[in-house]
Amino acid sequence: MIVIGGGVIGLAVAWRLAQQGAGVLLLERDEPGRGTSHVAAGMLAPVSEAHPREEPLLRLGIASAQAYPGFVAALEEASGLDPGYLECGTLIAARDRDEAEGLERELEIRTKFGLAVRRLTPTEARRLEPALAPTIRGALEVADDHAIDPRQLTKALVAAARRAGVQVRTGTAVTEVEIGADGAVGGVRLSDGERLSSDALVIAAGVWSPGLFGLPPEALVPVRPVKGQIMRLRDPGGAGLMTRALRLPAAYLVPRGDGRYVLGATVEERGFDTSVTAGALFELLRDAVELVPGLSELVIDELSAGTRPGTPDNAPVIGAGSVRGLYWATGHYRHGILLAPITAELIAQALLEGQLPSLGEPFSPRRFERGRKLPTEVGA
Amino acid sequence: MIVIGGGVIGLAVAWRLAQQGAGVLLLERDEPGRGTSHVAAGMLAPVSEAHPREEPLLRLGIASAQAYPGFVAALEEASGLDPGYLECGTLIAARDRDEAEGLERELEIRTKFGLAVRRLTPTEARRLEPALAPTIRGALEVADDHAIDPRQLTKALVAAARRAGVQVRTGTAVTEVEIGADGAVGGVRLSDGERLSSDALVIAAGVWSPGLFGLPPEALVPVRPVKGQIMRLRDPGGAGLMTRALRLPAAYLVPRGDGRYVLGATVEERGFDTSVTAGALFELLRDAVELVPGLSELVIDELSAGTRPGTPDNAPVIGAGSVRGLYWATGHYRHGILLAPITAELIAQALLEGQLPSLGEPFSPRRFERGRKLPTEVGA
Repeated sequence: MIVIGGGVIGLAVAWRLAQQGAGVLLLERDEPGRGTSHVAAGMLAPVSEAHPREEPLLRLGIASAQAYPGFVAALEEASGLDPGYLECGTLIAARDRDEAEGLERELEIRTKFGLAVRRLTPTEARRLEPALAPTIRGALEVADDHAIDPRQLTKALVAAARRAGVQVRTGTAVTEVEIGADGAVGGVRLSDGERLSSDALVIAAGVWSPGLFGLPPEALVPVRPVKGQIMRLRDPGGAGLMTRALRLPAAYLVPRGDGRYVLGATVEERGFDTSVTAGALFELLRDAVELVPGLSELVIDELSAGTRPGTPDNAPVIGAGSVRGLYWATGHYRHGILLAPITAELIAQALLEGQLPSLGEPFSPRRFERGRKLPTEVGA
Repeated sequence: MIVIGGGVIGLAVAWRLAQQGAGVLLLERDEPGRGTSHVAAGMLAPVSEAHPREEPLLRLGIASAQAYPGFVAALEEASGLDPGYLECGTLIAARDRDEAEGLERELEIRTKFGLAVRRLTPTEARRLEPALAPTIRGALEVADDHAIDPRQLTKALVAAARRAGVQVRTGTAVTEVEIGADGAVGGVRLSDGERLSSDALVIAAGVWSPGLFGLPPEALVPVRPVKGQIMRLRDPGGAGLMTRALRLPAAYLVPRGDGRYVLGATVEERGFDTSVTAGALFELLRDAVELVPGLSELVIDELSAGTRPGTPDNAPVIGAGSVRGLYWATGHYRHGILLAPITAELIAQALLEGQLPSLGEPFSPRRFERGRKLPTEVGA
């Protein structure tokens, strides 16, 4: 079988399939992990930005977050590499009454789903993280929201996938999906003209998924790029400024545990534009420096921008499409790193056992087929 | 004669000396213009940040600003290259009553020195520069404060110097100044061990000037590095957001005339540290975005940091030192680009005619010799 796309999703899927004995060829036009995964911050936060109507997505995220410790342990053993998982926990701080009220809503959701959460006074929060500004109004400690370094994760996934027998072929783009006379997937055509046969195909090409030709219009999944800008910072003084991740009003400050931090990301509808703009940096820094004044002393290692794959309902697309042999694992929007383990598991079950588990049903690509219920109803 | 240092000052001095018939060897350890000049914003503003007690420096700056049009015209002709001079004029905007009062003091100084200056209402200022925030309290138009692109300037100076006969030798550091038995300059020793003889030596090595060995302690000029961080921005929509330079409370926004802008620079006492920090970017952007909200849309082309050569009184060091044959052209702090033409002229007169013009006298290196008046009294 063929997996198209060598980001975290495609790699996790390929590795999982190979672990279960499948022969897998992974096609990546660039180098693995150089697209959206390369820019991701790596927060593993299933609840943080959830709206109540997104319960199925919450359940999916929680399942994936709970699978993470086992996933990274297996990955470390299989790859011989450190996947960069950091059990740091997260703080959510409120700066004013509005934000303090927001914390109460967060608390409710987390309590409802049985997740660890604790209300902190400003003093308690600053005892945990002395770098927090004295002006905070309150905080939540979310002890189980952790983080991973997506670049280390990608490297480990490539190694594990290869060791499990996945053939990783880079530098060649897939230009077309070939459909046989029987209406099922027959294979793919590459940019160098070569044709590869396969009766099973997983599209994990993220924002580039719509660039594949050959699929009938009714089988297509709509994916748009959603820009995110992000900063990589480094404390010349080493680790210790913040030990936990910090959720900001519209971003995260994520520690790597060694004095490096990631601050991001913006959410912008700008097509495939990946420029780094003054306004985005300013907004990221404004919130972050207000909450953690000591951040000013950090050195900027990297500014970057990427695009997340967003579907019309911003929920991922996981499972079998309307063409036989075609599977989708894309559209993970802001949650691709978090959802990699569960997506790999769901795709493996759908592909190898012929049945998408019920947890994945709300994310079936079939919801975008013409005549089906409107995308905005998903998860309602 | 030998000029040590291939920044804007060293290049301008070497070119001027060669124009007057001198045989000049310029020694630059890196590539010309890759040090402080490479990071400079290029504002040509003799008055902007002056304090009343710095009258000699004001007069020096005004003389150099007035020499600029002729300097760049000659440079363009001599080099065949565009030196990047932009007669943009400058606005100084006030955001509150304090800053509005500051404008009145600026107005006084400029009027006193006979410089063009005009008080503008907010409406008048926004008629000139519609991108200015509607919240400004008032502004000054400083029609004669222009800007130059230091990178283009450097390239043109290298070409002009070479065409005038200057031998530019790069990639070799000067490690030592050799003093002859007669107590006068004898030559220099290079890092590769080679010795070069010369009875006249101009030290234009900026922040690296104190790294030259061999001079008697009483002849040394104290120069320290003063860090500046700067951003290079680009408007994807092309030129037009701002046509004039804008003085911010602690920096400048300098247009290049083609949609590119430079925003900077900070002033930090950090030794030779040239890291780019979150806090510096934040402060630059905070003031700039408040005054020109449209700046948010600009793309960040480059973040950089450099060090300016600062003396104990932050005024430049120009002229003959206490060792015969030794001349200084360093310590230009925040004004190196502005002061290049006048420094070249003063050094040429001091070296070729044996007399530093009175305009340059307050900047003689002799003021730092032991037993002389305190540096802080200079210019009083």
